[in-house]
Amino acid sequence: MLSRVGIVGVGLIGGSLALAAKQRNLAREVIGVGRHPERLRDARERGMLDVCSTRLADVATGCDLVVFAVPVLTFPPLLEQFAVSWNGSGVVTDVGSTKMSTIRAARRELGPHYRSFVPGHPIAGRERAGHEFAEADLFVDHRVILTPTQDTDPAAVELVTGFWRAVGARVVTMPVEQHDTTLAATSHLPHLLAYALVAMLAGRSDAERVFEFAAGGFRDFTRVASSDPDMWADICLDNREAIETVLRDYQRCLHELQTAMHAGDRARLRSVLERAKVARDEWLDSQP
Amino acid sequence: MLSRVGIVGVGLIGGSLALAAKQRNLAREVIGVGRHPERLRDARERGMLDVCSTRLADVATGCDLVVFAVPVLTFPPLLEQFAVSWNGSGVVTDVGSTKMSTIRAARRELGPHYRSFVPGHPIAGRERAGHEFAEADLFVDHRVILTPTQDTDPAAVELVTGFWRAVGARVVTMPVEQHDTTLAATSHLPHLLAYALVAMLAGRSDAERVFEFAAGGFRDFTRVASSDPDMWADICLDNREAIETVLRDYQRCLHELQTAMHAGDRARLRSVLERAKVARDEWLDSQP
Repeated sequence: MLSRVGIVGVGLIGGSLALAAKQRNLAREVIGVGRHPERLRDARERGMLDVCSTRLADVATGCDLVVFAVPVLTFPPLLEQFAVSWNGSGVVTDVGSTKMSTIRAARRELGPHYRSFVPGHPIAGRERAGHEFAEADLFVDHRVILTPTQDTDPAAVELVTGFWRAVGARVVTMPVEQHDTTLAATSHLPHLLAYALVAMLAGRSDAERVFEFAAGGFRDFTRVASSDPDMWADICLDNREAIETVLRDYQRCLHELQTAMHAGDRARLRSVLERAKVARDEWLDSQP
Repeated sequence: MLSRVGIVGVGLIGGSLALAAKQRNLAREVIGVGRHPERLRDARERGMLDVCSTRLADVATGCDLVVFAVPVLTFPPLLEQFAVSWNGSGVVTDVGSTKMSTIRAARRELGPHYRSFVPGHPIAGRERAGHEFAEADLFVDHRVILTPTQDTDPAAVELVTGFWRAVGARVVTMPVEQHDTTLAATSHLPHLLAYALVAMLAGRSDAERVFEFAAGGFRDFTRVASSDPDMWADICLDNREAIETVLRDYQRCLHELQTAMHAGDRARLRSVLERAKVARDEWLDSQP
């Protein structure tokens, strides 16, 4: 059992993690830091936190583990603030969807204490933001990717790994470039594509009628477009290089379909659709 | 109660409609026509059909209503065959996802009896094909769009409307161009976009790892890419003009996002994402 865990940002992810830590008795004390006192008190009343504070300094000393669960572009300035009071004891981790920039910020802000920082990313979430939607089981059977670098302290990685396992997650480590490329392909790009579809339809003069006849396929395809625009603007900017690369590949594939369709080339069109269906069905079968 | 209903094509839609008609006592006899005798017998054993046949001529006489529930490009040759034996009594309808080409085929094949043809499209389905997935309640509270033309017999429209209402659907009529444009935007394009994403990922050298870390957002976004490639190749070709138009609009919107991302223009990027989120959340709230 840890003595004290600090959660910076008590939203969906931070709140779920705090709740899981409390319910599973992983720490004697969970302290939550956020901007809004009334929202923090509400989280405490919901049993997520023992203590709440609006001051980062309150988790900078005495915590075995501090988890930053904030939007990716908010992380660097907060870490800078945190570093002012931090003496380098304990371990710091984050939950950001992009990892390269997180690591850059941590190296810059933490200096010699960078070794105690473990970059992490739980592959879990909802399209709804806020601790109101927090669930203690949000991470059960979900992957958490850690992207430690050569100079990350193995003991810090071990502590973070143990913490995530204790809330039910399956932890894997991979190089940071691999993480950012993989997530750009399976998560960031689909978000961008879904947002683009809804934005385009909403701009039509006949938008009202068009939406009226949207059905289940549309609902699922666009679910991720109900995600927090601030969080996703940050992710898109932060991982833009990897996203731009995979977006170009995507546009090539879309263009292939477009060409086949325009030429009335059914065989070619069908073969791309078939390839996709087979790949997706196989993927689905492989899911736990 | 109708005396005799013919269902041509006993798959997911045809099978569900047959099952609903039987369970709700809408016809004295439901006769199913298909290519595979053993699959038809199976459908009969599941209580969907009273009679089954592999001959179209068996529904060309004596039916009050014949429903073609076949892939859109299969419809014209089957209707041609049907017309050889049909004496023009009773009403004919279809369930195809595109309506312009259906109407063209019906005018050509049915000649003076075209007036008894009611073009229809139930906005319901699953990504799974086959009568094994049929459900009597598949159409309950779903829309069915009818696109009669000026020379369609109002009594025929009334009969088809009554039949769909009796299986629980909400029937609306609209001009055929409006149908094809609307469905291209909310259904056909999302299918194409989802197929393109999975096909692109499947073609990567690191496809296995990439799929390994795909999560819930990816699953929902790509659900429609598990749909029948034959059915969707047909739909894409059949409605290609409307799809190409909306695809061009989509590419413009995607390009706007890409430009904002590349320029690091967070305000512009965020405003598009926000517009999409607001539109989708409003749409979701308006859903029954």
